[in-house]
Amino acid sequence: MCHACVIDSVKRAMISRRDLFRGAVAGTAAAAAGIAGTTSAFAATPSKVVDLTYGYDESFPTYFGAPGISSDQRFNFAEHGFNLKVLTVNEHTGTHLDAPLHFSADGASVDQIAVENLVLPLCIVDIREKAAANADAELTPDDLKAWISANGPIPDGACVAMNSGWQDRVSGDGFRNADSDGVMHFPGFHIEATQMLLETNAAAIGVDTLSLDYGKSGDFKTHYAWLPAGRYGIENLKSLDQLPASGATLVVGAPTHKGGTGGPARVLALL
Amino acid sequence: MCHACVIDSVKRAMISRRDLFRGAVAGTAAAAAGIAGTTSAFAATPSKVVDLTYGYDESFPTYFGAPGISSDQRFNFAEHGFNLKVLTVNEHTGTHLDAPLHFSADGASVDQIAVENLVLPLCIVDIREKAAANADAELTPDDLKAWISANGPIPDGACVAMNSGWQDRVSGDGFRNADSDGVMHFPGFHIEATQMLLETNAAAIGVDTLSLDYGKSGDFKTHYAWLPAGRYGIENLKSLDQLPASGATLVVGAPTHKGGTGGPARVLALL
Repeated sequence: MCHACVIDSVKRAMISRRDLFRGAVAGTAAAAAGIAGTTSAFAATPSKVVDLTYGYDESFPTYFGAPGISSDQRFNFAEHGFNLKVLTVNEHTGTHLDAPLHFSADGASVDQIAVENLVLPLCIVDIREKAAANADAELTPDDLKAWISANGPIPDGACVAMNSGWQDRVSGDGFRNADSDGVMHFPGFHIEATQMLLETNAAAIGVDTLSLDYGKSGDFKTHYAWLPAGRYGIENLKSLDQLPASGATLVVGAPTHKGGTGGPARVLALL
Repeated sequence: MCHACVIDSVKRAMISRRDLFRGAVAGTAAAAAGIAGTTSAFAATPSKVVDLTYGYDESFPTYFGAPGISSDQRFNFAEHGFNLKVLTVNEHTGTHLDAPLHFSADGASVDQIAVENLVLPLCIVDIREKAAANADAELTPDDLKAWISANGPIPDGACVAMNSGWQDRVSGDGFRNADSDGVMHFPGFHIEATQMLLETNAAAIGVDTLSLDYGKSGDFKTHYAWLPAGRYGIENLKSLDQLPASGATLVVGAPTHKGGTGGPARVLALL
């Protein structure tokens, strides 16, 4: 059983478009006429996929500041007839997952996250206004209450994502935003909001910054509260501004290397 | 515009269940009563997610035979308070993508595959019977014609996947199935089937074996025909037997490291 907001998110569109579907489904008679086409058992219907994933290379900002990936081209087309690289990757690079194991002794590794929790309702909490005024802003219980007031309860199995507007800074030093003492300043989840979400059945939290905790956190309170509880996190999301606060379905391409504490993941939102 | 078979695949279920939806959508009045619940703007509706992705470690079979991944634990919970690893990964390990760049001088890298081609109709061609009798079996034009006869034309933007039953061999040497001369024997796409699919608008082909070409191929004809045409491949799919020949929607979690020739990918099928 997945949290089938895929269904809900397209239901509304479909109800209004139902007449368009009639006659669009071809039977085997039509099939016999050709090997390809737009009419088939699959209706070619308008929808939308929003990519929440950064492309990344050695220049992509990382929490510790060092490059998160390097590659070694072992075969090249000119010499060998094909291209192939071996990558060296810090698990916590680019748009990536934090598995429970990242901040626990024996929590679930990234390959052990239940597949049912990889297709989930996406709730987007917009804190751009206060983050623009204060780089140390946090997503608080009041922000969650405002979302709930406008959109209804947090759905079971949801991912609650913070949109702080940080994507506008990704190309420069402003993404890490370290001061002269090396302390970073970017938004994250306040521990009290994290605790509030632990009272729900949300499966994941996500941020558009480098960490679930805000940058100046010295104690990783949100990581230590959320991940050992068997929930997971997603860091460095982009394009949350292209989605509604409620109604999108997230598909999280969690990596499957065994025993991983996290890893780069393709994250797509379906509308 | 994505190939919204998400919509089609759930449409049929939804039409019969529509009455269940009525009244299941809570408004803001109900929302004010609590922070969490199953009633919300997201309807909690039955659906199915099938994971087509292997978990993998250094023991997972690879084309060249050498381990495809190793890891270095840089931080551990007992000593540092958190766990973090750095991975060294051959791009073509586990369930993974072949980007056009893999077999071309300047084709699209894995991060450049259009997001619209990552959510796509899945067509499964079952060749298990002949593959059980002959490890050198190939998916041929006749197999495609049989699929089309039963299911209709190949949808635009589809992924056409071969189910050879090879997943039953994944735990042993039978997956690579190398003979005494080191020549491997496993099924793949025949070049003529590949050419037939190039006449359609299929976006991808997939296999449940180590290579798009059959194991004893010395010339990689299918790779050289398919990938430089701007299409992509998926290798080492599992659990295709849990899906219908037509009707599932594939979501392909293509990695986004820049310039990649491919990479491990989470692949999920939605029904």
